[in-house]
Amino acid sequence: MTDFKFEESLAVRDYELDVQGVVNNAVYQNYFEHARHQFLKKIGLNFVDLHQRGFDAVVHKIEIQYKRPLLANDEFVVKVAVEQQGAVRFIFHQQIERKSDKAITTIAKVTAVFMTGGRPIRPPKEVTDAVIAWQGSM
Amino acid sequence: MTDFKFEESLAVRDYELDVQGVVNNAVYQNYFEHARHQFLKKIGLNFVDLHQRGFDAVVHKIEIQYKRPLLANDEFVVKVAVEQQGAVRFIFHQQIERKSDKAITTIAKVTAVFMTGGRPIRPPKEVTDAVIAWQGSM
Amino acid sequence: MTDFKFEESLAVRDYELDVQGVVNNAVYQNYFEHARHQFLKKIGLNFVDLHQRGFDAVVHKIEIQYKRPLLANDEFVVKVAVEQQGAVRFIFHQQIERKSDKAITTIAKVTAVFMTGGRPIRPPKEVTDAVIAWQGSM
Amino acid sequence: MTDFKFEESLAVRDYELDVQGVVNNAVYQNYFEHARHQFLKKIGLNFVDLHQRGFDAVVHKIEIQYKRPLLANDEFVVKVAVEQQGAVRFIFHQQIERKSDKAITTIAKVTAVFMTGGRPIRPPKEVTDAVIAWQGSM
Repeated sequence: MTDFKFEESLAVRDYELDVQGVVNNAVYQNYFEHARHQFLKKIGLNFVDLHQRGFDAVVHKIEIQYKRPLLANDEFVVKVAVEQQGAVRFIFHQQIERKSDKAITTIAKVTAVFMTGGRPIRPPKEVTDAVIAWQGSM
Repeated sequence: MTDFKFEESLAVRDYELDVQGVVNNAVYQNYFEHARHQFLKKIGLNFVDLHQRGFDAVVHKIEIQYKRPLLANDEFVVKVAVEQQGAVRFIFHQQIERKSDKAITTIAKVTAVFMTGGRPIRPPKEVTDAVIAWQGSM
Repeated sequence: MTDFKFEESLAVRDYELDVQGVVNNAVYQNYFEHARHQFLKKIGLNFVDLHQRGFDAVVHKIEIQYKRPLLANDEFVVKVAVEQQGAVRFIFHQQIERKSDKAITTIAKVTAVFMTGGRPIRPPKEVTDAVIAWQGSM
Repeated sequence: MTDFKFEESLAVRDYELDVQGVVNNAVYQNYFEHARHQFLKKIGLNFVDLHQRGFDAVVHKIEIQYKRPLLANDEFVVKVAVEQQGAVRFIFHQQIERKSDKAITTIAKVTAVFMTGGRPIRPPKEVTDAVIAWQGSM
């Protein structure tokens, strides 16, 4: 079972609902991305700052399971775990848990790589070091 | 190889770009959704109309492979194919093809089901009939 | 000078940035709308609930002054005040204040009306009562 | 009466609808921005290209009148006219016209300026020249 050591607390905003009265499917990617970037900040990394220094973290693949919809007024946490896979990939495991009943509503597995000038690279040392330090922490 | 018999022609809009200068990951789900709904209209079905009559088509699972980014000014087509799987699921196969060089930039596999009152149902007969008629067509 | 008695605390999310590295103009409308809806909840009203009971609060007119851009990592509050104007209109005065330096970055004036079945109506009594009660409060 | 010499043809996409079943207020700013950028391309200017060369066109002020909502399946045009005001401002006049009945649904007045390094500048000569050439054209 995944040991999520980071979570970001969010709430549904009405403009995120679609005509079915549920959070639109694409918006969950916003939630997942925002939680990943908050996680990066937590371990000392900054997505926009990395971009400005020429290192672009990009999503290579995403799988999302929609188990239950989020509705107006729902509060939830987005949980994040990460592991390095091989030399160049990071796998993020993410779950959305509704606060009212602890139900897991949405599950994502995200494969990310680093690019510079449009080509995949080994992640910058500061990134690898930060991930390893975080994994070893409590 | 998938026989895509439907495609929707689109172009990148500048507000869809993020700070990296590429279309943000979540926006591709907008493209894929819009193309599916246009496909449904093509075969005589309407997502919003179905919702208003109590039948909600919902995404159960999505897998997206991001192979190349779309950039400002890019024009592309979103290709759509669908097959029914078992009694309740539809699988949509989708690809984004950049017009300038025919490169496949993004690939999605989307599992959709029908719900009514929050519970999965067998798809309405009009849906099954429309999909079968379309598959049999040229 | 406007007496803002409500404020909502928010932070820029990276997906809200555009290619210029600033929050895209349209996103401020999301911020302003979300703050208004949070304000409504605060005074006992709920936008989605009102809609489901047939009363649609809609924006009739909006004026936004963009004085300074919000950037990655910026934290800010959205301030909200409201007054009824004549029999049918509510005027919301809103300001975004950046936390780091208290700078007013964005100012909005929003005229809202209630509709039912596509036609403007006098606001439901529960709404007028809630606004009056709030204005009389500290 | 404004002489709109440019228009962009668009259609509502289902993900742009909110829980009220209408296009969300913020989305009209996407429509207006996209139409302005398409207009700029038409007269030989490119928003993203200008940004990459250090010239940022930014919105200073926007006023939007929402007269009628756009709904699912609506097709419409966004009309654009522009005039220079004083040394540094451009005023865009924009209207959304629904195709089915020619109704004007939404009206915008947008004040834009050019910035470089965070400070307002006189617009680049290529911009002024392009606008003047376009105004003199049929």
